Amino acid sequence: MKAIVTIMLKDGVLDPQGKAIGHALSNLGFGQVGDVRAGKIIEITLTETDPAAAKAGVEDMAKTLLANTVIESFKVEIAG
Amino acid sequence: MKAIVTIMLKDGVLDPQGKAIGHALSNLGFGQVGDVRAGKIIEITLTETDPAAAKAGVEDMAKTLLANTVIESFKVEIAG
Repeated sequence: MKAIVTIMLKDGVLDPQGKAIGHALSNLGFGQVGDVRAGKIIEITLTETDPAAAKAGVEDMAKTLLANTVIESFKVEIAG
Repeated sequence: MKAIVTIMLKDGVLDPQGKAIGHALSNLGFGQVGDVRAGKIIEITLTETDPAAAKAGVEDMAKTLLANTVIESFKVEIAG
């Protein structure tokens, strides 16, 4: 069973990496670009076979280690 | 219109960040963790209104700047 954790900075938190990517895209001639936000994605392979227990376990991991919940929000998806 | 670009290291490419996360989770007592892979997610707000044109444009951005296609694969999703 695989879990996918998506971690993004919360709205309102300054994202310099996203801003830099946005500026670089504009400089390269991609004129249609507005706001850009950068985040992290973490794929975890689990031995757990129950989707609900897997999701709860991975949410615990995200709160404990993967995300800084003061400035970041996270989303856990269980994929097969 | 918003595009979400997911960038992961290709299979077979060593992922030290993922390995470090996996070890840290094991050390914290999360025993059910197997392989861990870390990647990037980039959300781009676009002025383009046609989904097909938006997707083509963002794929061009990913190939040009966002992903290193030698070692990384990317996926573009268009979200509303």
